[in-house]
Amino acid sequence: MITSLKNPKVQQVRSLLNRRAERAQQKAFVAEGVRLVEEALQAGWPAQQVFYCAGVSPRGWQAAQAYAALGAEMEEVTPAVMQALSGTETPQGIMAVLSDHELPLPPAPDFLLVADGVRDPGNLGTLLRSAAAAGVQAVFLPPGTVDAFAPKVVRSAMGAHFRLPIRALDWPWLDAWRTAAPRPWRIFLAEAESGTPCWRADLRQPLMLIIGGEAEGAGPEAAGRVDERLSIPMPGQFESLNAGVAASILLFEVVRQRSL
Amino acid sequence: MITSLKNPKVQQVRSLLNRRAERAQQKAFVAEGVRLVEEALQAGWPAQQVFYCAGVSPRGWQAAQAYAALGAEMEEVTPAVMQALSGTETPQGIMAVLSDHELPLPPAPDFLLVADGVRDPGNLGTLLRSAAAAGVQAVFLPPGTVDAFAPKVVRSAMGAHFRLPIRALDWPWLDAWRTAAPRPWRIFLAEAESGTPCWRADLRQPLMLIIGGEAEGAGPEAAGRVDERLSIPMPGQFESLNAGVAASILLFEVVRQRSL
Repeated sequence: MITSLKNPKVQQVRSLLNRRAERAQQKAFVAEGVRLVEEALQAGWPAQQVFYCAGVSPRGWQAAQAYAALGAEMEEVTPAVMQALSGTETPQGIMAVLSDHELPLPPAPDFLLVADGVRDPGNLGTLLRSAAAAGVQAVFLPPGTVDAFAPKVVRSAMGAHFRLPIRALDWPWLDAWRTAAPRPWRIFLAEAESGTPCWRADLRQPLMLIIGGEAEGAGPEAAGRVDERLSIPMPGQFESLNAGVAASILLFEVVRQRSL
Repeated sequence: MITSLKNPKVQQVRSLLNRRAERAQQKAFVAEGVRLVEEALQAGWPAQQVFYCAGVSPRGWQAAQAYAALGAEMEEVTPAVMQALSGTETPQGIMAVLSDHELPLPPAPDFLLVADGVRDPGNLGTLLRSAAAAGVQAVFLPPGTVDAFAPKVVRSAMGAHFRLPIRALDWPWLDAWRTAAPRPWRIFLAEAESGTPCWRADLRQPLMLIIGGEAEGAGPEAAGRVDERLSIPMPGQFESLNAGVAASILLFEVVRQRSL
Protein backbone atom coordinates (compact mmCIF):
# COMPACT_ATOMS: atom_id res chain seq x y z
CA MET A 1 0.00 0.00 0.00
CA ILE A 2 1.27 3.46 -0.91
CA THR A 3 1.35 5.69 2.13
CA SER A 4 3.44 8.64 0.96
CA LEU A 5 2.83 11.49 -1.44
CA LYS A 6 6.50 11.20 -2.36
CA ASN A 7 5.97 7.77 -3.88
CA PRO A 8 7.00 8.05 -7.57
CA LYS A 9 3.74 6.54 -8.85
CA VAL A 10 1.73 9.04 -6.84
CA GLN A 11 3.92 11.86 -8.09
CA GLN A 12 3.34 10.74 -11.64
CA VAL A 13 -0.44 10.80 -11.20
CA ARG A 14 -0.14 14.22 -9.71
CA SER A 15 1.75 15.54 -12.70
CA LEU A 16 -0.81 13.97 -15.04
CA LEU A 17 -3.52 15.78 -13.11
CA ASN A 18 -1.77 19.13 -13.01
CA ARG A 19 0.23 19.43 -16.22
CA ARG A 20 -0.99 19.36 -19.80
CA ALA A 21 2.56 18.81 -21.09
CA GLU A 22 2.88 15.73 -18.90
CA ARG A 23 -0.40 14.34 -20.23
CA ALA A 24 0.83 14.89 -23.80
CA GLN A 25 4.20 13.27 -23.10
CA GLN A 26 2.82 10.29 -21.19
CA LYS A 27 -0.15 9.94 -23.58
CA ALA A 28 -2.40 9.45 -20.59
CA PHE A 29 -4.92 11.23 -18.38
CA VAL A 30 -6.77 10.59 -15.14
CA ALA A 31 -10.46 9.82 -14.52
CA GLU A 32 -11.69 10.07 -10.94
CA GLY A 33 -14.76 8.60 -9.28
CA VAL A 34 -16.89 5.48 -9.58
CA ARG A 35 -19.13 6.63 -12.39
CA LEU A 36 -16.31 7.86 -14.64
CA VAL A 37 -14.27 4.69 -14.19
CA GLU A 38 -17.38 2.64 -14.95
CA GLU A 39 -18.09 4.68 -18.07
CA ALA A 40 -14.51 4.21 -19.28
CA LEU A 41 -14.76 0.49 -18.67
CA GLN A 42 -18.10 0.14 -20.45
CA ALA A 43 -16.68 1.99 -23.44
CA GLY A 44 -13.70 -0.38 -23.56
CA TRP A 45 -11.25 2.43 -22.85
CA PRO A 46 -7.70 1.21 -22.02
CA ALA A 47 -6.46 1.83 -18.46
CA GLN A 48 -2.86 1.63 -17.25
CA GLN A 49 -3.35 1.84 -13.51
CA VAL A 50 -6.17 1.98 -10.99
CA PHE A 51 -5.60 3.69 -7.64
CA TYR A 52 -8.06 2.89 -4.89
CA CYS A 53 -8.29 3.25 -1.13
CA ALA A 54 -10.20 1.78 1.78
CA GLY A 55 -13.79 2.97 1.73
CA VAL A 56 -14.33 2.64 -2.02
CA SER A 57 -17.90 1.45 -2.70
CA PRO A 58 -18.63 -2.09 -3.90
CA ARG A 59 -19.47 -0.67 -7.34
CA GLY A 60 -16.13 1.12 -7.48
CA TRP A 61 -14.31 -1.98 -6.34
CA GLN A 62 -16.03 -4.04 -9.03
CA ALA A 63 -14.92 -1.57 -11.73
CA ALA A 64 -11.37 -1.66 -10.37
CA GLN A 65 -11.37 -5.47 -10.44
CA ALA A 66 -12.66 -5.50 -13.99
CA TYR A 67 -9.78 -3.26 -15.08
CA ALA A 68 -7.33 -5.46 -13.13
CA ALA A 69 -8.62 -8.48 -15.07
CA LEU A 70 -7.85 -6.56 -18.27
CA GLY A 71 -4.25 -6.07 -17.12
CA ALA A 72 -4.29 -2.67 -15.39
CA GLU A 73 -1.88 -2.28 -12.49
CA MET A 74 -3.70 -1.99 -9.14
CA GLU A 75 -2.35 0.36 -6.48
CA GLU A 76 -3.88 0.72 -3.06
CA VAL A 77 -3.20 4.08 -1.44
CA THR A 78 -4.12 5.45 1.97
CA PRO A 79 -7.25 7.61 2.20
CA ALA A 80 -4.94 10.55 2.96
CA VAL A 81 -3.02 10.04 -0.30
CA MET A 82 -6.30 9.73 -2.23
CA GLN A 83 -7.59 12.92 -0.63
CA ALA A 84 -4.39 14.75 -1.59
CA LEU A 85 -4.68 13.62 -5.23
CA SER A 86 -8.43 14.18 -5.52
CA GLY A 87 -10.03 17.21 -7.10
CA THR A 88 -13.14 16.79 -4.95
CA GLU A 89 -13.83 17.38 -1.27
CA THR A 90 -15.22 13.89 -0.70
CA PRO A 91 -13.27 11.52 -2.95
CA GLN A 92 -14.95 8.24 -3.88
CA GLY A 93 -11.72 6.30 -3.38
CA ILE A 94 -11.02 5.38 -7.01
CA MET A 95 -9.00 6.95 -9.79
CA ALA A 96 -7.79 5.44 -13.08
CA VAL A 97 -4.87 6.42 -15.28
CA LEU A 98 -6.26 6.01 -18.78
CA SER A 99 -4.28 5.83 -22.02
CA ASP A 100 -4.86 8.28 -24.82
CA HIS A 101 -7.08 6.49 -27.25
CA GLU A 102 -8.43 8.18 -30.36
CA LEU A 103 -12.00 7.29 -31.21
CA PRO A 104 -12.27 7.21 -35.01
CA LEU A 105 -13.58 10.24 -36.88
CA PRO A 106 -16.73 9.64 -38.94
CA PRO A 107 -16.11 9.14 -42.68
CA ALA A 108 -19.02 11.37 -43.79
CA PRO A 109 -19.76 13.70 -40.89
CA ASP A 110 -22.79 15.96 -40.77
CA PHE A 111 -22.72 17.23 -37.16
CA LEU A 112 -19.43 18.65 -35.86
CA LEU A 113 -18.53 21.02 -33.06
CA VAL A 114 -15.56 23.35 -32.57
CA ALA A 115 -14.91 24.90 -29.15
CA ASP A 116 -12.69 27.89 -29.93
CA GLY A 117 -11.11 29.73 -27.03
CA VAL A 118 -13.27 28.12 -24.33
CA ARG A 119 -11.08 28.56 -21.26
CA ASP A 120 -13.30 27.52 -18.38
CA PRO A 121 -12.89 23.78 -17.71
CA GLY A 122 -16.43 23.42 -16.31
CA ASN A 123 -17.90 25.05 -19.41
CA LEU A 124 -15.93 22.80 -21.76
CA GLY A 125 -16.98 19.72 -19.78
CA THR A 126 -20.66 20.72 -19.91
CA LEU A 127 -20.32 21.33 -23.63
CA LEU A 128 -18.78 17.89 -24.25
CA ARG A 129 -21.54 16.26 -22.20
CA SER A 130 -24.23 18.03 -24.21
CA ALA A 131 -22.45 17.25 -27.48
CA ALA A 132 -22.35 13.53 -26.69
CA ALA A 133 -26.05 13.56 -25.74
CA ALA A 134 -26.99 15.44 -28.92
CA GLY A 135 -25.17 12.97 -31.14
CA VAL A 136 -22.34 15.29 -32.26
CA GLN A 137 -19.87 13.12 -34.22
CA ALA A 138 -16.61 14.87 -33.29
CA VAL A 139 -15.41 17.88 -31.30
CA PHE A 140 -12.37 19.95 -32.28
CA LEU A 141 -10.38 22.18 -29.97
CA PRO A 142 -8.11 24.65 -31.76
CA PRO A 143 -5.18 26.19 -29.84
CA GLY A 144 -6.36 28.58 -27.12
CA THR A 145 -8.98 26.18 -25.76
CA VAL A 146 -8.49 24.47 -22.40
CA ASP A 147 -7.16 20.88 -22.58
CA ALA A 148 -10.09 18.45 -22.86
CA PHE A 149 -8.22 16.00 -20.62
CA ALA A 150 -7.70 18.36 -17.69
CA PRO A 151 -9.29 16.76 -14.60
CA LYS A 152 -12.09 19.30 -14.17
CA VAL A 153 -13.11 18.96 -17.83
CA VAL A 154 -13.13 15.16 -17.57
CA ARG A 155 -15.17 15.34 -14.37
CA SER A 156 -17.84 17.72 -15.66
CA ALA A 157 -18.18 15.87 -18.98
CA MET A 158 -19.39 12.82 -16.98
CA GLY A 159 -18.00 10.25 -19.43
CA ALA A 160 -18.57 12.02 -22.77
CA HIS A 161 -14.84 11.57 -23.45
CA PHE A 162 -15.35 7.84 -23.88
CA ARG A 163 -18.11 8.16 -26.52
CA LEU A 164 -17.18 11.23 -28.53
CA PRO A 165 -14.06 11.73 -30.69
CA ILE A 166 -12.24 14.81 -29.36
CA ARG A 167 -9.25 16.29 -31.18
CA ALA A 168 -6.94 19.22 -30.46
CA LEU A 169 -6.46 20.21 -34.11
CA ASP A 170 -5.93 23.50 -35.83
CA TRP A 171 -7.82 25.18 -38.67
CA PRO A 172 -5.59 24.15 -41.60
CA TRP A 173 -6.20 20.50 -40.75
CA LEU A 174 -9.96 21.14 -40.56
CA ASP A 175 -9.85 22.96 -43.92
CA ALA A 176 -8.17 19.99 -45.55
CA TRP A 177 -10.61 17.55 -43.98
CA ARG A 178 -13.56 19.60 -45.16
CA THR A 179 -12.20 19.78 -48.71
CA ALA A 180 -11.87 15.99 -48.78
CA ALA A 181 -15.32 15.37 -47.25
CA PRO A 182 -18.00 13.68 -49.38
CA ARG A 183 -20.47 16.42 -48.38
CA PRO A 184 -18.68 19.58 -47.20
CA TRP A 185 -20.37 21.11 -44.21
CA ARG A 186 -21.67 24.61 -43.66
CA ILE A 187 -19.85 26.46 -40.86
CA PHE A 188 -22.07 28.18 -38.30
CA LEU A 189 -20.85 30.46 -35.52
CA ALA A 190 -22.81 30.86 -32.28
CA GLU A 191 -23.13 34.61 -31.70
CA ALA A 192 -24.82 36.35 -28.80
CA GLU A 193 -25.56 39.67 -30.45
CA SER A 194 -26.50 39.14 -34.06
CA GLY A 195 -27.05 36.46 -36.66
CA THR A 196 -29.91 34.34 -37.95
CA PRO A 197 -32.31 33.36 -35.14
CA CYS A 198 -31.36 29.71 -34.66
CA TRP A 199 -34.82 28.35 -35.35
CA ARG A 200 -34.95 30.14 -38.72
CA ALA A 201 -31.62 28.71 -39.94
CA ASP A 202 -31.54 25.41 -41.83
CA LEU A 203 -29.65 23.11 -39.49
CA ARG A 204 -30.55 19.88 -41.26
CA GLN A 205 -27.69 20.19 -43.76
CA PRO A 206 -24.22 18.88 -42.78
CA LEU A 207 -22.78 21.46 -40.43
CA MET A 208 -19.96 22.43 -38.13
CA LEU A 209 -20.95 24.66 -35.20
CA ILE A 210 -18.28 26.92 -33.69
CA ILE A 211 -18.65 28.05 -30.09
CA GLY A 212 -16.39 30.82 -28.80
CA GLY A 213 -15.13 31.41 -25.28
CA GLU A 214 -17.00 33.28 -22.53
CA ALA A 215 -14.82 36.36 -22.67
CA GLU A 216 -13.62 37.03 -26.19
CA GLY A 217 -15.78 34.77 -28.36
CA ALA A 218 -14.27 32.86 -31.27
CA GLY A 219 -10.86 33.88 -32.60
CA PRO A 220 -10.12 35.50 -35.99
CA GLU A 221 -9.06 32.18 -37.57
CA ALA A 222 -12.49 30.76 -36.77
CA ALA A 223 -14.42 33.90 -37.67
CA GLY A 224 -12.77 34.05 -41.11
CA ARG A 225 -14.20 30.64 -42.01
CA VAL A 226 -17.82 31.23 -40.97
CA ASP A 227 -20.65 30.83 -43.49
CA GLU A 228 -23.48 31.97 -41.21
CA ARG A 229 -23.90 33.40 -37.73
CA LEU A 230 -26.57 32.05 -35.39
CA SER A 231 -28.22 33.83 -32.49
CA ILE A 232 -30.57 32.69 -29.76
CA PRO A 233 -33.47 35.13 -29.44
CA MET A 234 -33.75 36.25 -25.81
CA PRO A 235 -37.09 37.84 -25.01
CA GLY A 236 -36.11 38.53 -21.39
CA GLN A 237 -34.79 41.90 -20.28
CA PHE A 238 -31.51 40.17 -19.68
CA GLU A 239 -29.38 39.20 -22.66
CA SER A 240 -26.86 36.77 -21.35
CA LEU A 241 -26.43 33.02 -21.30
CA ASN A 242 -23.66 30.79 -19.97
CA ALA A 243 -21.46 29.71 -22.92
CA GLY A 244 -22.05 25.99 -22.31
CA VAL A 245 -25.80 26.57 -22.06
CA ALA A 246 -25.96 28.64 -25.25
CA ALA A 247 -24.06 25.96 -27.14
CA SER A 248 -26.34 23.24 -25.78
CA ILE A 249 -29.47 25.11 -26.87
CA LEU A 250 -28.06 25.31 -30.41
CA LEU A 251 -27.00 21.64 -30.44
CA PHE A 252 -30.49 20.54 -29.45
CA GLU A 253 -32.04 22.86 -32.02
CA VAL A 254 -30.09 20.81 -34.59
CA VAL A 255 -31.52 17.64 -33.02
CA ARG A 256 -35.04 19.10 -33.15
CA GLN A 257 -34.85 20.12 -36.81
CA ARG A 258 -33.43 16.77 -37.83
CA SER A 259 -36.15 14.87 -35.95
CA LEU A 260 -38.95 16.50 -37.94
CA MET B 1 -10.02 51.96 6.48
CA ILE B 2 -10.88 48.54 7.91
CA THR B 3 -7.73 46.47 8.34
CA SER B 4 -8.93 43.58 10.51
CA LEU B 5 -11.12 40.58 9.89
CA LYS B 6 -12.35 41.04 13.45
CA ASN B 7 -14.00 44.33 12.60
CA PRO B 8 -17.74 43.90 13.35
CA LYS B 9 -18.81 45.16 9.91
CA VAL B 10 -16.53 42.66 8.22
CA GLN B 11 -17.80 39.90 10.46
CA GLN B 12 -21.35 40.78 9.54
CA VAL B 13 -20.60 40.54 5.81
CA ARG B 14 -18.96 37.22 6.44
CA SER B 15 -22.03 35.84 8.15
CA LEU B 16 -24.25 37.16 5.35
CA LEU B 17 -22.01 35.30 2.90
CA ASN B 18 -21.88 32.06 4.85
CA ARG B 19 -25.22 31.70 6.59
CA ARG B 20 -28.69 31.50 5.10
CA ALA B 21 -30.31 32.18 8.49
CA GLU B 22 -28.30 35.38 8.80
CA ARG B 23 -29.41 36.53 5.35
CA ALA B 24 -33.03 35.84 6.32
CA GLN B 25 -32.70 37.67 9.63
CA GLN B 26 -30.83 40.69 8.24
CA LYS B 27 -32.99 40.72 5.09
CA ALA B 28 -29.86 41.26 3.05
CA PHE B 29 -27.34 39.48 0.81
CA VAL B 30 -24.00 40.19 -0.81
CA ALA B 31 -23.12 40.78 -4.46
CA GLU B 32 -19.44 40.66 -5.39
CA GLY B 33 -17.63 42.02 -8.40
CA VAL B 34 -17.90 44.99 -10.74
CA ARG B 35 -20.46 43.57 -13.12
CA LEU B 36 -22.86 42.38 -10.42
CA VAL B 37 -22.74 45.68 -8.54
CA GLU B 38 -23.34 47.53 -11.82
CA GLU B 39 -26.28 45.26 -12.64
CA ALA B 40 -27.82 45.87 -9.22
CA LEU B 41 -27.36 49.61 -9.64
CA GLN B 42 -28.89 49.66 -13.11
CA ALA B 43 -31.87 47.72 -11.85
CA GLY B 44 -32.37 50.25 -9.03
CA TRP B 45 -31.71 47.63 -6.36
CA PRO B 46 -31.25 49.09 -2.84
CA ALA B 47 -27.77 48.75 -1.29
CA GLN B 48 -26.88 49.22 2.38
CA GLN B 49 -23.09 49.19 2.20
CA VAL B 50 -20.35 49.03 -0.40
CA PHE B 51 -16.98 47.53 0.53
CA TYR B 52 -14.07 48.34 -1.73
CA CYS B 53 -10.29 48.19 -1.65
CA ALA B 54 -7.31 49.71 -3.41
CA GLY B 55 -7.01 48.32 -6.92
CA VAL B 56 -10.74 48.40 -7.76
CA SER B 57 -11.18 49.34 -11.42
CA PRO B 58 -12.49 52.79 -12.46
CA ARG B 59 -15.77 51.13 -13.50
CA GLY B 60 -16.09 49.50 -10.08
CA TRP B 61 -15.28 52.77 -8.37
CA GLN B 62 -17.91 54.58 -10.41
CA ALA B 63 -20.55 52.02 -9.38
CA ALA B 64 -19.51 52.40 -5.74
CA GLN B 65 -19.77 56.19 -5.97
CA ALA B 66 -23.20 55.94 -7.54
CA TYR B 67 -24.39 53.82 -4.62
CA ALA B 68 -22.77 56.25 -2.17
CA ALA B 69 -24.75 59.08 -3.78
CA LEU B 70 -27.91 57.04 -3.15
CA GLY B 71 -27.04 56.81 0.54
CA ALA B 72 -25.11 53.52 0.84
CA GLU B 73 -22.41 53.45 3.49
CA MET B 74 -18.91 53.24 1.96
CA GLU B 75 -16.26 51.12 3.66
CA GLU B 76 -12.70 50.86 2.44
CA VAL B 77 -10.99 47.63 3.45
CA THR B 78 -7.45 46.41 2.88
CA PRO B 79 -6.85 44.08 -0.09
CA ALA B 80 -6.13 41.31 2.46
CA VAL B 81 -9.57 41.75 4.07
CA MET B 82 -11.23 41.78 0.64
CA GLN B 83 -9.37 38.62 -0.32
CA ALA B 84 -10.50 36.90 2.88
CA LEU B 85 -14.15 37.82 2.23
CA SER B 86 -14.10 37.05 -1.47
CA GLY B 87 -15.41 33.85 -3.00
CA THR B 88 -13.01 34.21 -5.95
CA GLU B 89 -9.28 33.79 -6.30
CA THR B 90 -8.76 37.21 -7.85
CA PRO B 91 -11.29 39.57 -6.24
CA GLN B 92 -12.25 42.67 -8.19
CA GLY B 93 -12.12 44.82 -5.07
CA ILE B 94 -15.83 45.59 -4.69
CA MET B 95 -18.68 43.98 -2.81
CA ALA B 96 -22.12 45.37 -1.97
CA VAL B 97 -24.51 44.45 0.83
CA LEU B 98 -27.91 44.58 -0.87
CA SER B 99 -31.30 44.69 0.84
CA ASP B 100 -33.90 42.05 0.18
CA HIS B 101 -36.24 43.58 -2.32
CA GLU B 102 -39.13 41.67 -3.81
CA LEU B 103 -39.74 42.29 -7.47
CA PRO B 104 -43.51 42.15 -8.05
CA LEU B 105 -45.11 38.95 -9.31
CA PRO B 106 -46.93 39.27 -12.64
CA PRO B 107 -50.74 39.59 -12.35
CA ALA B 108 -51.49 37.15 -15.21
CA PRO B 109 -48.42 34.93 -15.57
CA ASP B 110 -47.94 32.52 -18.45
CA PHE B 111 -44.29 31.46 -18.02
CA LEU B 112 -43.21 30.30 -14.54
CA LEU B 113 -40.37 28.13 -13.30
CA VAL B 114 -40.00 26.00 -10.16
CA ALA B 115 -36.56 24.68 -9.15
CA ASP B 116 -37.39 21.80 -6.83
CA GLY B 117 -34.52 20.20 -4.92
CA VAL B 118 -31.73 21.83 -6.95
CA ARG B 119 -28.83 21.69 -4.51
CA ASP B 120 -25.83 22.75 -6.56
CA PRO B 121 -25.41 26.53 -6.32
CA GLY B 122 -23.75 26.79 -9.75
CA ASN B 123 -26.64 24.91 -11.37
CA LEU B 124 -29.24 27.13 -9.72
CA GLY B 125 -27.33 30.25 -10.79
CA THR B 126 -27.12 29.05 -14.39
CA LEU B 127 -30.81 28.25 -14.31
CA LEU B 128 -31.74 31.72 -13.03
CA ARG B 129 -29.56 33.33 -15.71
CA SER B 130 -31.24 31.28 -18.45
CA ALA B 131 -34.69 31.98 -16.98
CA ALA B 132 -34.09 35.73 -17.03
CA ALA B 133 -32.85 35.54 -20.64
CA ALA B 134 -35.84 33.44 -21.71
CA GLY B 135 -38.33 35.88 -20.22
CA VAL B 136 -39.54 33.69 -17.37
CA GLN B 137 -41.81 35.86 -15.21
CA ALA B 138 -41.06 34.36 -11.78
CA VAL B 139 -39.02 31.54 -10.24
CA PHE B 140 -40.15 29.60 -7.17
CA LEU B 141 -37.90 27.60 -4.88
CA PRO B 142 -39.73 25.15 -2.61
CA PRO B 143 -37.98 23.89 0.55
CA GLY B 144 -35.04 21.62 -0.27
CA THR B 145 -33.61 23.93 -2.93
CA VAL B 146 -30.39 25.84 -2.27
CA ASP B 147 -30.86 29.48 -1.18
CA ALA B 148 -31.03 31.73 -4.25
CA PHE B 149 -29.08 34.40 -2.37
CA ALA B 150 -26.07 32.23 -1.48
CA PRO B 151 -22.95 33.90 -2.90
CA LYS B 152 -22.18 31.26 -5.52
CA VAL B 153 -25.76 31.34 -6.82
CA VAL B 154 -25.68 35.13 -7.05
CA ARG B 155 -22.32 35.01 -8.84
CA SER B 156 -23.28 32.43 -11.44
CA ALA B 157 -26.64 34.06 -12.14
CA MET B 158 -24.71 37.14 -13.38
CA GLY B 159 -27.38 39.64 -12.35
CA ALA B 160 -30.56 37.66 -13.06
CA HIS B 161 -31.57 38.29 -9.43
CA PHE B 162 -32.15 41.95 -10.20
CA ARG B 163 -34.55 41.33 -13.12
CA LEU B 164 -36.46 38.21 -12.17
CA PRO B 165 -38.85 37.77 -9.21
CA ILE B 166 -37.50 34.88 -7.12
CA ARG B 167 -39.47 33.48 -4.19
CA ALA B 168 -38.82 30.72 -1.67
CA LEU B 169 -42.43 29.54 -1.41
CA ASP B 170 -44.01 26.21 -0.83
CA TRP B 171 -46.60 24.29 -2.84
CA PRO B 172 -49.76 25.26 -0.91
CA TRP B 173 -49.04 28.91 -1.67
CA LEU B 174 -48.50 28.07 -5.35
CA ASP B 175 -51.77 26.09 -5.42
CA ALA B 176 -53.68 29.05 -4.04
CA TRP B 177 -52.04 31.44 -6.48
CA ARG B 178 -52.88 29.15 -9.38
CA THR B 179 -56.52 28.86 -8.30
CA ALA B 180 -56.80 32.63 -8.21
CA ALA B 181 -55.04 33.17 -11.55
CA PRO B 182 -57.02 34.59 -14.47
CA ARG B 183 -55.66 31.77 -16.71
CA PRO B 184 -54.49 28.76 -14.66
CA TRP B 185 -51.26 27.31 -16.01
CA ARG B 186 -50.45 23.79 -17.05
CA ILE B 187 -47.73 22.20 -14.91
CA PHE B 188 -44.90 20.50 -16.82
CA LEU B 189 -42.12 18.47 -15.25
CA ALA B 190 -38.72 18.13 -16.92
CA GLU B 191 -37.92 14.41 -16.96
CA ALA B 192 -34.80 12.74 -18.31
CA GLU B 193 -36.21 9.31 -18.99
CA SER B 194 -39.75 9.56 -20.23
CA GLY B 195 -42.42 12.04 -21.17
CA THR B 196 -43.60 13.96 -24.22
CA PRO B 197 -40.66 14.95 -26.45
CA CYS B 198 -40.44 18.67 -25.69
CA TRP B 199 -40.94 19.79 -29.27
CA ARG B 200 -44.18 17.83 -29.55
CA ALA B 201 -45.74 19.36 -26.42
CA ASP B 202 -47.80 22.55 -26.69
CA LEU B 203 -45.74 25.09 -24.76
CA ARG B 204 -47.61 28.15 -25.99
CA GLN B 205 -50.30 27.84 -23.31
CA PRO B 206 -49.69 29.40 -19.86
CA LEU B 207 -47.32 27.05 -18.08
CA MET B 208 -45.21 26.37 -15.03
CA LEU B 209 -42.10 24.26 -15.66
CA ILE B 210 -40.71 22.23 -12.76
CA ILE B 211 -37.03 21.30 -12.77
CA GLY B 212 -35.79 18.71 -10.26
CA GLY B 213 -32.35 18.40 -8.69
CA GLU B 214 -29.37 16.56 -10.23
CA ALA B 215 -29.55 13.62 -7.88
CA GLU B 216 -33.13 12.82 -6.94
CA GLY B 217 -35.21 14.84 -9.39
CA ALA B 218 -38.33 16.66 -8.20
CA GLY B 219 -39.88 15.76 -4.86
CA PRO B 220 -43.23 14.00 -4.31
CA GLU B 221 -45.04 17.27 -3.57
CA ALA B 222 -44.06 18.55 -7.00
CA ALA B 223 -44.63 15.27 -8.80
CA GLY B 224 -48.17 15.02 -7.43
CA ARG B 225 -49.12 18.28 -9.13
CA VAL B 226 -47.76 17.56 -12.61
CA ASP B 227 -50.06 17.66 -15.65
CA GLU B 228 -47.48 16.48 -18.22
CA ARG B 229 -43.92 15.23 -18.28
CA LEU B 230 -41.44 16.56 -20.83
CA SER B 231 -38.33 14.87 -22.15
CA ILE B 232 -35.47 16.03 -24.34
CA PRO B 233 -34.79 13.45 -27.07
CA MET B 234 -31.08 12.53 -27.01
CA PRO B 235 -29.94 10.81 -30.18
CA GLY B 236 -26.36 10.38 -28.90
CA GLN B 237 -25.20 7.16 -27.29
CA PHE B 238 -24.98 9.10 -24.09
CA GLU B 239 -28.16 9.99 -22.24
CA SER B 240 -27.18 12.61 -19.77
CA LEU B 241 -27.37 16.40 -19.55
CA ASN B 242 -26.39 18.83 -16.83
CA ALA B 243 -29.57 19.87 -14.93
CA GLY B 244 -29.10 23.58 -15.67
CA VAL B 245 -28.52 22.82 -19.35
CA ALA B 246 -31.57 20.56 -19.65
CA ALA B 247 -33.75 23.24 -18.04
CA SER B 248 -32.35 25.89 -20.36
CA ILE B 249 -33.09 23.80 -23.46
CA LEU B 250 -36.72 23.47 -22.31
CA LEU B 251 -37.03 27.19 -21.48
CA PHE B 252 -35.82 28.15 -24.94
CA GLU B 253 -38.13 25.61 -26.55
CA VAL B 254 -40.95 27.62 -24.92
CA VAL B 255 -39.43 30.78 -26.42
CA ARG B 256 -39.21 29.13 -29.85
CA GLN B 257 -42.81 27.92 -29.88
CA ARG B 258 -44.12 31.29 -28.74
CA SER B 259 -42.13 33.14 -31.40
CA LEU B 260 -43.80 31.24 -34.27
